[in-house]
Amino acid sequence: MSPVTERPGTGQRAVILVSGGLDSTTVLAMALRQGYKCYTLSFDYGQRHRAELVAAQRVSSAHPDVQHKVVTLNLDSIGGSALTDPDIAVPEEATTGIPVTYVPARNTVFLSIALGWAEVLDAQAIFIGVNAVDYSGYPDCRPAYITAFEEMANLATRAGVEGRRLALHTPLMHLSKAEIIAAGIGLGVDYALTVSCYQATDEGLACGRCDACRLRRDGFLQAGVADPTRYRP
Amino acid sequence: MSPVTERPGTGQRAVILVSGGLDSTTVLAMALRQGYKCYTLSFDYGQRHRAELVAAQRVSSAHPDVQHKVVTLNLDSIGGSALTDPDIAVPEEATTGIPVTYVPARNTVFLSIALGWAEVLDAQAIFIGVNAVDYSGYPDCRPAYITAFEEMANLATRAGVEGRRLALHTPLMHLSKAEIIAAGIGLGVDYALTVSCYQATDEGLACGRCDACRLRRDGFLQAGVADPTRYRP
Repeated sequence: MSPVTERPGTGQRAVILVSGGLDSTTVLAMALRQGYKCYTLSFDYGQRHRAELVAAQRVSSAHPDVQHKVVTLNLDSIGGSALTDPDIAVPEEATTGIPVTYVPARNTVFLSIALGWAEVLDAQAIFIGVNAVDYSGYPDCRPAYITAFEEMANLATRAGVEGRRLALHTPLMHLSKAEIIAAGIGLGVDYALTVSCYQATDEGLACGRCDACRLRRDGFLQAGVADPTRYRP
Repeated sequence: MSPVTERPGTGQRAVILVSGGLDSTTVLAMALRQGYKCYTLSFDYGQRHRAELVAAQRVSSAHPDVQHKVVTLNLDSIGGSALTDPDIAVPEEATTGIPVTYVPARNTVFLSIALGWAEVLDAQAIFIGVNAVDYSGYPDCRPAYITAFEEMANLATRAGVEGRRLALHTPLMHLSKAEIIAAGIGLGVDYALTVSCYQATDEGLACGRCDACRLRRDGFLQAGVADPTRYRP
């Protein structure tokens, strides 16, 4: 395989949405391995799990060439989700359908701000760690949605008008949690830096009971990798 | 004409993007006339022209049934525009191409947050005052962009998954400024409440020299309507 094929992002810039969790941290490692100069973007959007912002900074800082930015927006003011509304409880057992932890239009809002930063940076790619396997209940994690966003994005910007295409990459779309973990371990990801829990303590201790914790724990088990998560006593 | 045709929004909710300017204030009047229960949305995004937020509140309060919300996000942190970066001057003469007052992906970001609120409200429509006549230099004011956003939006949300379509209305798209003003006057809009200037004073006094001021002044002239704008001495 030629070096060009191995590192298609060489000489290009990419904006990576990072939440400090397992998935987006793996995506960052994949984008770096592809040769992109990476700009990580996180959001302070009134979420319960503030520890994720600390983790997002931590996983970004693990790579000296990565520039990290936090954009603040009060999505909690529109409500509608257990992740931003203290009056809606985070469920601690499996649910069906679109879960209450779904934040209305969250991926669309995050990708839109990433699009704006990509335009300022003259970046050629945006990476997001959406997954159609574990999060099939979230409308904005489906492949058809991602394709539609990419089309819209290329009509929305100066780059699009001038004929430079922006690509929206979703390398985890069809991977199981165990496959994601296996890929990340192969890329040298230190998952001890990451926080996935929907209701982690400020110190990043996980509850071990919410959907995100269950998926993560099962993933390590199935991947045959020791779980580095720090759980609440 | 039947009452149903005249007021197609009766019994429906709509989110209206309002900037406090002439265009979006006219759009609000149009949506109200169509019978929608209207929810106005503005953004504190680090813009220079803070007077627009005061004006957005003022034009919303002029209608007792309208609920107004301001979402804060620090778009200035991604830079790239004369409207959010104090180091880039607002031009005071006509320019060609995409102007420096273009804020990267701004309409996409604003529409995405409107989409989230529309989902929480179970609204059937979003209204935005984009215009392909005066703002042909802005990529995110073109009809093809609006169509692509609407497609994406209907894949992004719970409502879309469940088969309820959300419509993105752009009633000003093909109107000249004079036609917009004439329509607004017909709907009883008080344009003295509005602020269009890119560098208005905190009291809402207009510079009279920027692109937005020029378009507005010419519009009143061409419509044959007295210009109620308060200009700086």
